[in-house]
Amino acid sequence: MRFAVCIEDGERRLGVVRGTDIAVLGSSSPDLLELINWGKDGLAAIAKQVEVLPPAAWQPLATTPLALPFEPSGKIVCLGLNYRAHAQEGGYAVPDYPAIFLRTATSLLPAGEAIIAPHVSEKLDFEAELMVIVGRAGRYIPKTDALDHVFGYTCFNDASIRDYQRKTHQWTPGKNFDRTGAVGPVIVTADELPAGASGLSIACRLNGETVQNASTADMMVSVAMAVSIISEFMTLEPGDMIAMGTPQGVGYARTPPLWMGPGDVVEVEIEGIGILRNSIAAEEPRSTAK
Amino acid sequence: MRFAVCIEDGERRLGVVRGTDIAVLGSSSPDLLELINWGKDGLAAIAKQVEVLPPAAWQPLATTPLALPFEPSGKIVCLGLNYRAHAQEGGYAVPDYPAIFLRTATSLLPAGEAIIAPHVSEKLDFEAELMVIVGRAGRYIPKTDALDHVFGYTCFNDASIRDYQRKTHQWTPGKNFDRTGAVGPVIVTADELPAGASGLSIACRLNGETVQNASTADMMVSVAMAVSIISEFMTLEPGDMIAMGTPQGVGYARTPPLWMGPGDVVEVEIEGIGILRNSIAAEEPRSTAK
Repeated sequence: MRFAVCIEDGERRLGVVRGTDIAVLGSSSPDLLELINWGKDGLAAIAKQVEVLPPAAWQPLATTPLALPFEPSGKIVCLGLNYRAHAQEGGYAVPDYPAIFLRTATSLLPAGEAIIAPHVSEKLDFEAELMVIVGRAGRYIPKTDALDHVFGYTCFNDASIRDYQRKTHQWTPGKNFDRTGAVGPVIVTADELPAGASGLSIACRLNGETVQNASTADMMVSVAMAVSIISEFMTLEPGDMIAMGTPQGVGYARTPPLWMGPGDVVEVEIEGIGILRNSIAAEEPRSTAK
Repeated sequence: MRFAVCIEDGERRLGVVRGTDIAVLGSSSPDLLELINWGKDGLAAIAKQVEVLPPAAWQPLATTPLALPFEPSGKIVCLGLNYRAHAQEGGYAVPDYPAIFLRTATSLLPAGEAIIAPHVSEKLDFEAELMVIVGRAGRYIPKTDALDHVFGYTCFNDASIRDYQRKTHQWTPGKNFDRTGAVGPVIVTADELPAGASGLSIACRLNGETVQNASTADMMVSVAMAVSIISEFMTLEPGDMIAMGTPQGVGYARTPPLWMGPGDVVEVEIEGIGILRNSIAAEEPRSTAK
């Protein structure tokens, strides 16, 4: 199944996506994280509910304001340097263990909203990525069982502030600016895609021009390997997110570098999942009090 | 004021600490995160409530099972290499910007419980640290206002799995093993300590032997600077935690290295805050299903 989450009457509402349309379910429906926890029975119940929806329940997804799939209360684990050509364009050695960093909930934003270009930097870069949504908890998950722990997949733009990423060897600051990591719009359950979402074309377009173009088959660490490697040090939980790294073509590795700025529109497209579209906006002047 | 949080009847309960005793407040009392959000009025209300407690309300803190101060739903931001002598003992250049990494909630545990030595490594190391509890939200907080955003302080043991920390240049795996980062036991409000909790002795003892011994005055990045630097890239929120880095003396930099193992007892003591004591336990055999 394919899901997106929107806001209606100030409440997060689960929606089912079919083609280019979304049907927003009633307020008694579970939120997506509850649905993930319910497992296959929950999906079957939702599928039955969708079967009997009247045609009028469907509206265009493209014009529906979306929210993050769920309030991110869990872990946001990101792989770096997971496409050989991207590691090489950045001057990094190709690692035999993935570079792993974390994002915080404050760094995320949904599809359709604006990625914020902070006033302290001009080096805002795009990174098209496959994002895994964990469905079942586990620790020390063997690679052979790992895909059973995946609920589904979505698109991610791991937009990065490059000068802050390189302040020290730890990338955290440049990966955690408020509202830079775009997620969505559609979460596709794993059964609708090839195993491990492998072999899908993945692209990034900036103002309509293709700037990244690769295949998820080029990932050195597969989804199954990532789940296994990460669960070796931490318990993965339903709703945890795993960003699978970006392919070659990022802005900082170009001559001259290509940065995103206010007014730009950036899209991440993954075959079989959808298009994640965000504009870039300048940060509003603000006081320190939130 | 001084707070600790315990579990009674399966519920997290706020306690007030006086000397070596704790008074556990009634179930209608706020949890610590609510109290942080209430600000000074909340503290004043609790202080009044404590004034009229009967002597029988007080029990020894040392024998009271404690919980984490609150369910960590926010950010756990950690500074690395913040004591010059520790950066040097590890062979790192002394940075002019702090190395910043993140921990996840699954990596934490309260005072009194066992730090888990995972079976995949023997390189479990101690790190005594000052931990800041953020009290007020803010972004781009100037250094001069930064301490107004601090609710209080506690002890932290940033216990690290060194071989996983060095798998790549990103330290995340070795800093995020389940139940390795010990927090507590007492959260001391900022007004009870010197500004920025500076000039306090900080020590780590392993099985009673002092292995780290320094002063928080040796931190290169002060608490005010840390709040300012971190809030330049992310909105800090009430309940966010900032670990201020560890001084020299860690196990991996010794010849021969000194690792922690099952049966050991490790203590972090910070002057004016308290003693964080944890045993080390071997990981229990487990299946992948949590």
